[in-house]
Amino acid sequence: MTPQHYARQYRNALLNDVTPFWQRHSVDHEHGGFFTCLDRQGHVYDTDKFVWLQARQVWTFAMLYNRLGQESGEATSQGRRADWLAMAQYGADFLEKYGRAEDGNWYFSLTREGRPLVQPYNIFSDCFATMAFGQLSIATGRDAYAHIAKMTFEGILARQENPKGQWSKAVAGTRPLKNFALPMILCNLALEIEHLLDRDQVDQTIETCIHEVMDVFYDADLGLIRENVTPDGQVSDSFEGRLLNPGHAIEAMWFIMDLAARRDDRALMERAVKITLDTLNYAWDKEYGGILYFMDADGHPPQQLEWDQKLWWVHVETLISLLKGYHLTGNQQCWDWFVRLHDYTWSHFPDPTHGEWYGYLNRRGEVLLPLKGGKWKGCYHVPRGLYQCWQVLERLSANKQLHTV
Amino acid sequence: MTPQHYARQYRNALLNDVTPFWQRHSVDHEHGGFFTCLDRQGHVYDTDKFVWLQARQVWTFAMLYNRLGQESGEATSQGRRADWLAMAQYGADFLEKYGRAEDGNWYFSLTREGRPLVQPYNIFSDCFATMAFGQLSIATGRDAYAHIAKMTFEGILARQENPKGQWSKAVAGTRPLKNFALPMILCNLALEIEHLLDRDQVDQTIETCIHEVMDVFYDADLGLIRENVTPDGQVSDSFEGRLLNPGHAIEAMWFIMDLAARRDDRALMERAVKITLDTLNYAWDKEYGGILYFMDADGHPPQQLEWDQKLWWVHVETLISLLKGYHLTGNQQCWDWFVRLHDYTWSHFPDPTHGEWYGYLNRRGEVLLPLKGGKWKGCYHVPRGLYQCWQVLERLSANKQLHTV
Repeated sequence: MTPQHYARQYRNALLNDVTPFWQRHSVDHEHGGFFTCLDRQGHVYDTDKFVWLQARQVWTFAMLYNRLGQESGEATSQGRRADWLAMAQYGADFLEKYGRAEDGNWYFSLTREGRPLVQPYNIFSDCFATMAFGQLSIATGRDAYAHIAKMTFEGILARQENPKGQWSKAVAGTRPLKNFALPMILCNLALEIEHLLDRDQVDQTIETCIHEVMDVFYDADLGLIRENVTPDGQVSDSFEGRLLNPGHAIEAMWFIMDLAARRDDRALMERAVKITLDTLNYAWDKEYGGILYFMDADGHPPQQLEWDQKLWWVHVETLISLLKGYHLTGNQQCWDWFVRLHDYTWSHFPDPTHGEWYGYLNRRGEVLLPLKGGKWKGCYHVPRGLYQCWQVLERLSANKQLHTV
Repeated sequence: MTPQHYARQYRNALLNDVTPFWQRHSVDHEHGGFFTCLDRQGHVYDTDKFVWLQARQVWTFAMLYNRLGQESGEATSQGRRADWLAMAQYGADFLEKYGRAEDGNWYFSLTREGRPLVQPYNIFSDCFATMAFGQLSIATGRDAYAHIAKMTFEGILARQENPKGQWSKAVAGTRPLKNFALPMILCNLALEIEHLLDRDQVDQTIETCIHEVMDVFYDADLGLIRENVTPDGQVSDSFEGRLLNPGHAIEAMWFIMDLAARRDDRALMERAVKITLDTLNYAWDKEYGGILYFMDADGHPPQQLEWDQKLWWVHVETLISLLKGYHLTGNQQCWDWFVRLHDYTWSHFPDPTHGEWYGYLNRRGEVLLPLKGGKWKGCYHVPRGLYQCWQVLERLSANKQLHTV
């Protein structure tokens, strides 16, 4: 298949399967916001509203509205998808009304009606809210959205040294560790709300993030990224310190590739491509195919009982990193791996009967949970990945002369 | 096989495989306490000390010391196993020195040296400490052990309405739920330290526990025990409210059978046997055999990605309930199920090459993690289960005339 053929496949899935699935099944017409617990057919099986997923769905529809013209569906006068903007605003209304505690931090979850269920212990609720309102401020030009995005971002910066606050169960001082997720996402966030920040703040955040990801969490001896390190970047010989989350590391690599492209930093691109390939080689399941979810850097049993499962987001994010890596550097291994992983992913995750993708497969690639959405899977990784892959594949089609595929 | 043959198998595994495995591999001769993260061979792969598992191992060796004569090994002048008492005391020394926070509550985990790692957010650390020091006070007659057991038990009673305290992430009032584990274990605890409590307190605790387990958490419409219910015992249509933990429910049934036997309450015995069999029929994996770990009462996808795994403790606890049920009521289904589950359990969990049992199998019964111990698996369910089964099987052998096997 040529990049053009692949591009068509990703585009079609995005526009004709995945976004319509969420538009059709997830809207709570009675209480606002989105249902995300959808079974195989798209029926709602639980009505709790998880702030991560509410915000991610807002972001997804706002982002697509901002970036795509009217490929299909109802158009605004600017040729954009009015229905996508409406979806994003519908979710944002609910979040604006019910999502925040008095201190401005975002709850983790709400009841269907919007009453707070789980406290703001999880800073990623705030991260996804920042992204959501940032994209919506671009889409609408509304100051109120920009204000929420900016206030939330400042709250994250203020909490970043102790993100779990009173809900942290670690005894302070005994074994301080820092986690990979926050620096990785902060850098993405800074770009998401670049239009609301000072240039210096953006540059500084990016600088710090690249350093943290590529020098601190990347363990040169191991040749892989660790999920947790000591505050001064050393290895901790503990369950947390030995933990590898290959999908997470590979996802970070396409953020880094985007930054490298922005700076035209060839060496950084090459390093990100190498880490992508090394991680994939390490975490590829030689027995059953697919990418393992968790591993222990020393080969010990990890704590996570789900370690050998095949998760949708891991595979989607890796497809993006491989395509970006190929597009930016022409590394043939990226393309070869993309073809192999594309085949695994498309033959295991999508559900041609009822639409959208399964999220959780067992090691053998059999469906473990037949859901299309739940507490952690919503309208985010699949549409974002389809969009990202489609865009890169389009560019590859247009530049055939650069890298013969 | 006759009960006598089975009895020999359980006895041998306890005395010649499982207790020696932990005596050989788990003792930290340098810093005290026990290693529990042991790989297939018994080698230590992580040195953190989890209070649940420290206390459970103390309890196991103290309980065996208290209940068994010198079947083998070094004997005290009373014909008891001095080495078992020494093991229990060795772990208790470490716990006494390092296990408690200033307020007397027990930490969740410690470093190898005994420095606190994870706060006392988990009341089951206190429950297992009560059991450990209670058994040791019986073994030694030492007041200091009795005092720790009693103080800890009182702390549990004081915290029982809000066991997670400041570490609870639930917003108070929105969806209050109570969990099955605490009432279930409190009743067991009251018996464990019966020698330290008023008769009234013991009777009252047992009365409450039986009511909670058999009337409140047991859902008569569903015919199964729910893991969480509202404070007034109603169904909550939420992930937590729909959750079933079949092994947990079945484990509770042998606690109830013991209480029923103590009171000579035939109706209660029969109910406990029925719930055991109904739960087992419901949770037995018709495709691959073994008992599923988590289920959703309405058949929706559970949150737990490990829902379809086969765990050692689930199978061990069910063997106990089936044997006790058969011994107390003569119900033939209990024996037939015991034979079937015995075959599954013994052909999947024990490791004849390196000793002890695997803890975590995938749905197909293949080893998922080759560990013999970790953060949650230690020296507890296997030896307790072997001991309990052996004892019931001995009694069955002696009373062949009552229930022909």
